Amino acid sequence: MSRSVTDGPEPQYEKVVSGYETFQHGETFECDWGGELPEFSLAYETWGTLNAARDNAILLHTGLSSSSHAHSQPNNTHDGWWESFIGAGKPIDTDRFFVVCSNLLGGCYGSTGPAATSPKTNEPYGTDFPILTVNDMVRAQLLLLDHLGIDRLHATVGSSLGGMQSLQLAATRPERAGRVVSISAATRSYPQAIAMRFVQRQAVMLDPDWKGGRYYGSSFPHRGQKVAREIGTTTYRSGPEWQERFGRERIGSGVPTLDEDFTIEGYLVHQGEKFCLQYDPNSYLYISKAMDLFDVTADAPDGRPMIDHIESPALVIGVTSDILFPSWQQREVADRIEANGTPTTYVEIDGHYGHDTFMIDLERVGEPLREHLEQG
Amino acid sequence: MSRSVTDGPEPQYEKVVSGYETFQHGETFECDWGGELPEFSLAYETWGTLNAARDNAILLHTGLSSSSHAHSQPNNTHDGWWESFIGAGKPIDTDRFFVVCSNLLGGCYGSTGPAATSPKTNEPYGTDFPILTVNDMVRAQLLLLDHLGIDRLHATVGSSLGGMQSLQLAATRPERAGRVVSISAATRSYPQAIAMRFVQRQAVMLDPDWKGGRYYGSSFPHRGQKVAREIGTTTYRSGPEWQERFGRERIGSGVPTLDEDFTIEGYLVHQGEKFCLQYDPNSYLYISKAMDLFDVTADAPDGRPMIDHIESPALVIGVTSDILFPSWQQREVADRIEANGTPTTYVEIDGHYGHDTFMIDLERVGEPLREHLEQG
Repeated sequence: MSRSVTDGPEPQYEKVVSGYETFQHGETFECDWGGELPEFSLAYETWGTLNAARDNAILLHTGLSSSSHAHSQPNNTHDGWWESFIGAGKPIDTDRFFVVCSNLLGGCYGSTGPAATSPKTNEPYGTDFPILTVNDMVRAQLLLLDHLGIDRLHATVGSSLGGMQSLQLAATRPERAGRVVSISAATRSYPQAIAMRFVQRQAVMLDPDWKGGRYYGSSFPHRGQKVAREIGTTTYRSGPEWQERFGRERIGSGVPTLDEDFTIEGYLVHQGEKFCLQYDPNSYLYISKAMDLFDVTADAPDGRPMIDHIESPALVIGVTSDILFPSWQQREVADRIEANGTPTTYVEIDGHYGHDTFMIDLERVGEPLREHLEQG
Repeated sequence: MSRSVTDGPEPQYEKVVSGYETFQHGETFECDWGGELPEFSLAYETWGTLNAARDNAILLHTGLSSSSHAHSQPNNTHDGWWESFIGAGKPIDTDRFFVVCSNLLGGCYGSTGPAATSPKTNEPYGTDFPILTVNDMVRAQLLLLDHLGIDRLHATVGSSLGGMQSLQLAATRPERAGRVVSISAATRSYPQAIAMRFVQRQAVMLDPDWKGGRYYGSSFPHRGQKVAREIGTTTYRSGPEWQERFGRERIGSGVPTLDEDFTIEGYLVHQGEKFCLQYDPNSYLYISKAMDLFDVTADAPDGRPMIDHIESPALVIGVTSDILFPSWQQREVADRIEANGTPTTYVEIDGHYGHDTFMIDLERVGEPLREHLEQG
């Protein structure tokens, strides 16, 4: 990719995209909504050791913006995005489990996405990339598991979009999921969340550098991606946390400006600037769209809702202050699975970190996770 | 103003900006944060008759996007934005009260705002317009009241930004406010609301047609303003309302697109397109910024918080599903006023129209309003 990732205030691209392994799938992959990929790659990383029975694997799904780098490892010693949750003696105990995390199909951290070169045209796919679904992402991961010789997972685990994938896997391939964990996800995307992601996509596409998605080789639509991430950031935490942290503090003491002025605004700008230098805007469009399309209550080929096929004991975690995936949606996940007669534990965290809680609260997210994984 | 307002799918500009009267203030107006206007105009409309004692006037403050056209009148027979709340026998009873509503200072519906010609340069102000505060807007309105010969209002009434103005007036000029009504406003802007307005301003400024605010005479940044309004619209209603109204319905039945696709997205686009053809983007920037700066808990010149000066009996109305001005902020308004020993009525509406409830719920907003206005 031709953009500069070293111009920003905090270049972090190398931290998240070095030292991964690559699974190459050399055959045609048909996407759910039509369109196909003649081949694809998935970047992935692993921690711990696959046992002789090959039955101790945990597949960790990522959210929208994370790479396969969930934890430090010899080829990339930077902290990963779930560093404190994974390791010897940690909630996901690498003394016991073999952990696999892959970058999403459609992503920009080593997996095939819109920035990849199409073997048919020898040009980047751009917006010729097919529309993706969460199920497409999961099917690609199952091919990776085949490659690794893992038939049945000890558990499928994810938060946010990762939780959607986790539920999708357990619903469509119940025989491959020993246990399922869904944190701050949903049975389907509701209109409020679709609206919030739509306006983010509109911001990307408003940037004249977006050029209908054909910006590779020239300036990336960094400004649109920055504003998109600023909008996204307004949905990731909670008002009470920001009140405590920023209040009404202003950056300067002089006459206010129409641009960055309050400290909360500086925080949004920082998040936007950091992100826009390390993420491909077209990946953002495709992956956020896949989230909107997610609906595991839709019918499976047998006419029953997909979610009714989940038979893996489930852990569902929600957060009261989450405005993007509100806790009533978490209770709905748990209730739907439990209604199948599947053993289900629901944990609701009363805290003010909102949707981002799963990245932060090692105790209240990590301990129920540990307990669930160590059962069975 | 040189933009076309008749190109859009629903040209409405004429409906909101015809038939008003204009108050011309020919002297220099000093703004709170520095900067001055050598002169200004306010567009206003009135309904009912000022009595001989000149003590039956109600000043109605508008939100961000409304004009002075709160109700139909002989010179503009289109329905106004609070049509059903005002009139003979209505909650604001024009048989009894003289109602005044003015377009905001800084606005674009007949009052002096960034699109107005600066008498100093003979050019539109653009971003040379001074930063405005809610207090500036209220001070301009008080000059209009002086012009109309109204010393003391029967009541100051407003919703959203209008509620901020209503509180500001009652706090800074308590002798001029017989009663005060604040609906879905706040004692001050909290960071979540500042963040949501900031990203809207960023969308406007992302549009290359914005040109630092110097777009008069050429293309307006309609696309940025459209996205800004789409973002704003996500904060005006509630998730449950949208679930009931739109659910996950898609516009077409084919392969999803990265652009407008779900019905909720079509709704946002419609709101954005309608608005961007009738509102000046620079007015949007200045007025939304004034909302961020609002803080009636800040100290008055005497060292006591401004809000502690409110002595007008108060009606405060909040809505449980309001995500922009949450109901806890309404309770805070009521509690702060009541703590002064000022008689205060707090009404909380349990409904799913969110922030927009004040535009819609004639019974649950209108009846407490009627009762409050008819006392005293």
